[in-house]
Amino acid sequence: VTSPGRDGLFSGLFDRGAAGTGDEAWLQAMLDTEAALARALERAGFAAEGSGAAVTSVANVSFFPDKSFGGLAATAGNPVPALVKALTGLIPATAAGAAEAVHRGATSQDIIDTAAMLISSRVIDAALADLATAAGHAAAMARSHADTIMAGRTLLQQAVPVTFGLVAAGWLTSIDEARAGLRAIRSRRLAVQFGGAAGTLAALGEAGPAVAALLADELGLAVPVLPWHTDRLRIIELAATLAGTCAVLGKIARDVTLLAQTEIAEVSEDLAGGERGGSSTMPHKQNPVASIVILGCAKRAPGLLATLAAAAEQEHQRAAGAWHAEWETLSDLLRLTGSTASWAADLLSGLQIHPARMRANLDATHGLPMAEHLATLLAPTLGRLAANDLIAKASLQATADDTNLADALLTNPEAAAKLASARVSRAQIEAALNPASYLGATAEFIRRALANHAEQDS
Amino acid sequence: VTSPGRDGLFSGLFDRGAAGTGDEAWLQAMLDTEAALARALERAGFAAEGSGAAVTSVANVSFFPDKSFGGLAATAGNPVPALVKALTGLIPATAAGAAEAVHRGATSQDIIDTAAMLISSRVIDAALADLATAAGHAAAMARSHADTIMAGRTLLQQAVPVTFGLVAAGWLTSIDEARAGLRAIRSRRLAVQFGGAAGTLAALGEAGPAVAALLADELGLAVPVLPWHTDRLRIIELAATLAGTCAVLGKIARDVTLLAQTEIAEVSEDLAGGERGGSSTMPHKQNPVASIVILGCAKRAPGLLATLAAAAEQEHQRAAGAWHAEWETLSDLLRLTGSTASWAADLLSGLQIHPARMRANLDATHGLPMAEHLATLLAPTLGRLAANDLIAKASLQATADDTNLADALLTNPEAAAKLASARVSRAQIEAALNPASYLGATAEFIRRALANHAEQDS
Amino acid sequence: VTSPGRDGLFSGLFDRGAAGTGDEAWLQAMLDTEAALARALERAGFAAEGSGAAVTSVANVSFFPDKSFGGLAATAGNPVPALVKALTGLIPATAAGAAEAVHRGATSQDIIDTAAMLISSRVIDAALADLATAAGHAAAMARSHADTIMAGRTLLQQAVPVTFGLVAAGWLTSIDEARAGLRAIRSRRLAVQFGGAAGTLAALGEAGPAVAALLADELGLAVPVLPWHTDRLRIIELAATLAGTCAVLGKIARDVTLLAQTEIAEVSEDLAGGERGGSSTMPHKQNPVASIVILGCAKRAPGLLATLAAAAEQEHQRAAGAWHAEWETLSDLLRLTGSTASWAADLLSGLQIHPARMRANLDATHGLPMAEHLATLLAPTLGRLAANDLIAKASLQATADDTNLADALLTNPEAAAKLASARVSRAQIEAALNPASYLGATAEFIRRALANHAEQDS
Amino acid sequence: VTSPGRDGLFSGLFDRGAAGTGDEAWLQAMLDTEAALARALERAGFAAEGSGAAVTSVANVSFFPDKSFGGLAATAGNPVPALVKALTGLIPATAAGAAEAVHRGATSQDIIDTAAMLISSRVIDAALADLATAAGHAAAMARSHADTIMAGRTLLQQAVPVTFGLVAAGWLTSIDEARAGLRAIRSRRLAVQFGGAAGTLAALGEAGPAVAALLADELGLAVPVLPWHTDRLRIIELAATLAGTCAVLGKIARDVTLLAQTEIAEVSEDLAGGERGGSSTMPHKQNPVASIVILGCAKRAPGLLATLAAAAEQEHQRAAGAWHAEWETLSDLLRLTGSTASWAADLLSGLQIHPARMRANLDATHGLPMAEHLATLLAPTLGRLAANDLIAKASLQATADDTNLADALLTNPEAAAKLASARVSRAQIEAALNPASYLGATAEFIRRALANHAEQDS
Repeated sequence: VTSPGRDGLFSGLFDRGAAGTGDEAWLQAMLDTEAALARALERAGFAAEGSGAAVTSVANVSFFPDKSFGGLAATAGNPVPALVKALTGLIPATAAGAAEAVHRGATSQDIIDTAAMLISSRVIDAALADLATAAGHAAAMARSHADTIMAGRTLLQQAVPVTFGLVAAGWLTSIDEARAGLRAIRSRRLAVQFGGAAGTLAALGEAGPAVAALLADELGLAVPVLPWHTDRLRIIELAATLAGTCAVLGKIARDVTLLAQTEIAEVSEDLAGGERGGSSTMPHKQNPVASIVILGCAKRAPGLLATLAAAAEQEHQRAAGAWHAEWETLSDLLRLTGSTASWAADLLSGLQIHPARMRANLDATHGLPMAEHLATLLAPTLGRLAANDLIAKASLQATADDTNLADALLTNPEAAAKLASARVSRAQIEAALNPASYLGATAEFIRRALANHAEQDS
Repeated sequence: VTSPGRDGLFSGLFDRGAAGTGDEAWLQAMLDTEAALARALERAGFAAEGSGAAVTSVANVSFFPDKSFGGLAATAGNPVPALVKALTGLIPATAAGAAEAVHRGATSQDIIDTAAMLISSRVIDAALADLATAAGHAAAMARSHADTIMAGRTLLQQAVPVTFGLVAAGWLTSIDEARAGLRAIRSRRLAVQFGGAAGTLAALGEAGPAVAALLADELGLAVPVLPWHTDRLRIIELAATLAGTCAVLGKIARDVTLLAQTEIAEVSEDLAGGERGGSSTMPHKQNPVASIVILGCAKRAPGLLATLAAAAEQEHQRAAGAWHAEWETLSDLLRLTGSTASWAADLLSGLQIHPARMRANLDATHGLPMAEHLATLLAPTLGRLAANDLIAKASLQATADDTNLADALLTNPEAAAKLASARVSRAQIEAALNPASYLGATAEFIRRALANHAEQDS
Repeated sequence: VTSPGRDGLFSGLFDRGAAGTGDEAWLQAMLDTEAALARALERAGFAAEGSGAAVTSVANVSFFPDKSFGGLAATAGNPVPALVKALTGLIPATAAGAAEAVHRGATSQDIIDTAAMLISSRVIDAALADLATAAGHAAAMARSHADTIMAGRTLLQQAVPVTFGLVAAGWLTSIDEARAGLRAIRSRRLAVQFGGAAGTLAALGEAGPAVAALLADELGLAVPVLPWHTDRLRIIELAATLAGTCAVLGKIARDVTLLAQTEIAEVSEDLAGGERGGSSTMPHKQNPVASIVILGCAKRAPGLLATLAAAAEQEHQRAAGAWHAEWETLSDLLRLTGSTASWAADLLSGLQIHPARMRANLDATHGLPMAEHLATLLAPTLGRLAANDLIAKASLQATADDTNLADALLTNPEAAAKLASARVSRAQIEAALNPASYLGATAEFIRRALANHAEQDS
Repeated sequence: VTSPGRDGLFSGLFDRGAAGTGDEAWLQAMLDTEAALARALERAGFAAEGSGAAVTSVANVSFFPDKSFGGLAATAGNPVPALVKALTGLIPATAAGAAEAVHRGATSQDIIDTAAMLISSRVIDAALADLATAAGHAAAMARSHADTIMAGRTLLQQAVPVTFGLVAAGWLTSIDEARAGLRAIRSRRLAVQFGGAAGTLAALGEAGPAVAALLADELGLAVPVLPWHTDRLRIIELAATLAGTCAVLGKIARDVTLLAQTEIAEVSEDLAGGERGGSSTMPHKQNPVASIVILGCAKRAPGLLATLAAAAEQEHQRAAGAWHAEWETLSDLLRLTGSTASWAADLLSGLQIHPARMRANLDATHGLPMAEHLATLLAPTLGRLAANDLIAKASLQATADDTNLADALLTNPEAAAKLASARVSRAQIEAALNPASYLGATAEFIRRALANHAEQDS
């Protein structure tokens, strides 16, 4: 499941997305940026013909086997100067003038920030594919379980009935909203950063903006109003969209872990016939691994988001530290987002739904989740507050006696009298206790979620 | 400066926006929601004629002098049930049926979440007004100081020249981007929450969605695809937009505090003729209060954002705790955003720019910030790396000797020889050391920032 | 339940501790600091006789009815200068020289930081009282339910048996550890801050340190090595201890909400006979309010802690913004800690334990939680991995067939053969399936937790 | 500078401590734990003689060249089951019974948590060594620059004079406090985790606690009161201590970056003769790399701390996700702490102090930082507030006229008259303007910081 090159101890859990965010991904993205710059400079007449192609031909991680810029990074405070030197050294002597085109007009921050945008675009594209899969499965469940009645639960207590289709529709809509956010960021806010030493592109005279536009064109990124070296709003927006995606999937995973509890057992993960979910010691365990890992990833996003938001306080034309704090933090957030999306596709594609258990859990509570419905039946004659009081007392009685709410009501003389005076019959009460009679707009909401989904994917 | 009712010990600093976020604001927003619900129910035929007006007539904080729901909130876990009871009690007996319309179909979360959206819309509207003022002043400075040369600074070291107009243009663009984000959230994501006990609106039968739409119409909020009781993505998006606004203003304030340092003194705050900025003990102090308070507010936003992002992991149909963690946190973030926006309008409207000092600080460094320019002059003949080396050595020499970079170059025999061989004259060197000759796209970037601003405000 | 003066909309939930953290608490603490300083100065011979008493006599919030320092705070950037002026104005003219003693040698930060320490000490004292109550009840439950068998649950799945006494012992130990942390911070790290304008106490000549020591003595705070104006480590340590306390109580509340789920029902909160825990619409609801509010408070602590940790990057001798970010943040964290402690005392004192339900939930899973025990029985002859495989297969079978693990094993020919070859009898298997036979060190761990508790409280 | 095996793109910056935290470190720590468990089991009579040695002999990362547990981790949700299988497979067949001792009684969490404690202890030990170096250099500077006068700065404005020795003493004390915290956590809170499947150690019968004690003995870790599988207070305490260390060093780095600003230039980093601190484009740049990287690391600690604090809400006997969120987060925080400590040792060992520049910057402000001193001179006769007003006006005048505060006072007729009536002579004024006359307790505070340091290291 893990991608090539990502064989770390925890990568199967936390680095599972199709697009990388590690050293190799960073190095390639920086090389891609330098190569695109050379091509842009050539197109703008700032580099000899063939420079773009010459630089591009060597701008590949496979030419940098030892990636040994880490040590050198410590002398400059970032790996770009060492990378530029190494890249320049690889250019064939025959490519006259190409060496001069490397990094021309750029500063280290241009390369790192633009590379970060490239990595972001790649991770977002991969995550969008996984989220489309996840949404597709959520939509299918919303449709097929539209009438599968289960307990709605508020504050972890049974409240009123819902259907599993509605639960899935809620998941679906939240995934679709996250996808919309990712697409918007991807197309509008992932912009090239190209400003030179202090945002004036002085080394390119007046031609800087034109080169910047060509660079954006080469890389498929947006052109910003200005170099954004110390305007980090887009980083916050990007990070918030990633964290929002994690949060949405975390909510789904939380629901699954709760519904999959041994005692509730209304859903279960596909554990690949026992291949997955085992314990190192307990032979019977079937742990919902996908949900657990999603939660493990999602719980890390808020702290990373906070770091990136705090790092936006950047001094003058380049920040002393706040910028550096972004690099690995954004990488981690991208990685975890990619991982949650991948796990979510897996989770929802294999989720097993147990309608009988859903119904049994609801029925086990003696009609209490229908108490609100009963109250609405009595409110017109008794008044809303008095009706609520009557039903609340009967609910306590039903729980104490382990009996049905209808019986608790009808066998209590005072309640029975009030029901009689309100001309409410046992048949009406029993009808009101039927969960299917109290689903309100459930079907309509499912329909809307599916329509919204269809629109988004059209 | 403080609004009525906000006379706390620190409110002059941290609660300075025009729109409130405290108890009074919350209470009124909840009452507004209940009143709007009564009107919506009446319009949908679910409440007697006149119910909406009757509820609306008493839904005002002035009728709730003691706001004593805090104690009662502890019994229900939130203040809504006590509020509903109190509100119902105020309805004139003559308004037949109006009492029955109060809160009908709603659950506590509907009221609190929708009230939160109302408060958010009010704070955002107020902040947008302050940000328009701030942006206007930034635009004016970008225009009038387009040619005011100063040192660009990276990593807190002088780098290459910029102009103060470009700095202001950067501030402007970031404010304009924050405004765009706030407007988008305001119109598209501040949505009514109306789902009843568990998101089915069961108590309203099939008419729930229609009532929800009318409620949104009454309140000027958007209609969501589904009730969003446990889909908190919009809260994260809202919070990120607020935190992003704080971050953008925090960056400006950081720049101002740095430029206003005693030893740099390139800008100063308008301290109202000494009224503001004094110290309790040091008679000479003129502290940049507005910037400091903006930073004091902005530094709190990331932690609050993280809390809201983490709180999105909400169980089933209502969260046990995560939802409750949002209320005050969102209030605080709204309050601090309103405060930073208000302070920023103040800061930028009175900011004093000292061009002579800007020039003097740049000139004091012996032409070193022009070193890159010199290097580009030599690169075509010497090669880029060799040119950089030559200038780097001369820069160290100039610093050591407290002399000008031109002299350091020309008095060094080796350097002089290389310059001669490259046919670079002293006149050329001196021209290259003129900051005005090395501003690159500065003018164009300022023009773009102003055009983007004009477009946004058109 | 709410303290006087704290009648806000949400104070019953989030401001429930006995010690205040609001404006009144801050104002009094600042006045206490100024009064103690006057007394210290008098003791050191720096103020006229009677100055201390004169200042102390007016240093009471009741003399400052309008607390109108908020507006003035905006001109100085903090409320102290206005407070000093007002306090000085209240000193009787007869107290010759007392006015000169007010604030002598101090700077605003000295007053605010020392006041923060005072408020912290008061909140910690109150929280320690509530935590002692909570720990007492946890200890009682650990003792009385030492043998109450229930399912241990890992990853929300039944794992192996534990006893409720062990669960309570775990809660107890964590509360005791939190108490130890609070006591250590209280006595060792809550130190007076007194450094004057820039930490030299220059205005007091060489006598500064002696006055600082007397000030600490007056206030019952520690004396630091140095003024700590921009060394904020103690704030981080304080904040971490508060957040740790919230976290420990949050874990307990999470357990309670899970154990109190409708379908599990192994514990329930004392809802005061239905007074607490009701819903605004659902008559049957009995929400575990205390746990929910504890979670609602505890989930906010990490973000506040992060803000305080980030705010420790303070410039030179007083920070421009980072210091200001601490004030309300620390207040909030103190308030929430006080509130969680108060709720926790309430929660644990009334918690109802349902042993029959605990046993029923365990028994409902066909002996699966004893699978590990069975495996250890077979491991010596079959080898550990083979034994695990055998039991894992039988576990799947037992689940599929809704039968007991013993039956699943013995009716499977292959398993039966292996059992026979291992000379394991049905009686041995059935004995191994008795949860009481597989509690390991449970009793010893409970004993240790109680001993540790007794030691801490001795 | 980078340790072997840590050759990543950014490791020279962010992974510079002597102790590793990556996959290799984790794997070795888990192997160390399994080996120590085998030895402990043997000592307790639970494993055949020689089992401990047999397991230990193969428990080395060098035997696990491909570390390919990542993929398998995805099936179990953690890498331990795969590791146990691989480790068991390596045990020589001749070591009878040793295979049975592997992992006996333990659960995956025992191994991962204990390994985390081991890694923590190794990183803390390495960081303590670096911090001792850093503190030593700070102490040396506190001593040698005890009388080096410089401007104290509050809110980034010159306030009153201090000495650089006092600044260094402040740094020293904060480092010493961080060291004390690390040592306390190291010895008291880094405890073995050993509880078996659900914290009862059931698989070891009643002998579990004895094995746990032996395991702790083998590993040099503390014995906890109880297994702490879901009591994560020690993780919060550990994380807070790490984050506090980062914060303390971040404050120092912030000071250095500010003091090293081009325009202030009171300190500079040792840039190894130009080897370090260069720019990819600007030949003259000498960036304070160590401080920048320290800030880049330190700014990430608060978010990681928040994640770990939030993750402490762990369900029942093992958390579904919150536990998993800790692994990489704690690793990152350890790594960044190790890196900041290493960089801090480097920074302080080479820091260059420029006393002449310190004095020049102070003198450039016309005596304004002595305004408070002057005011204290006049206060006895004029009253404190009137004296402050007089000096405040003269300060504004001195700034406006670019003249000395003494002259501004004496040439103003009103001020001169007041001075005369107070019998304050020009000589007294000039004496009061001597910074050396207004250092208060500076020498005493330096002495205390050094004494505290000596005591800590004794």
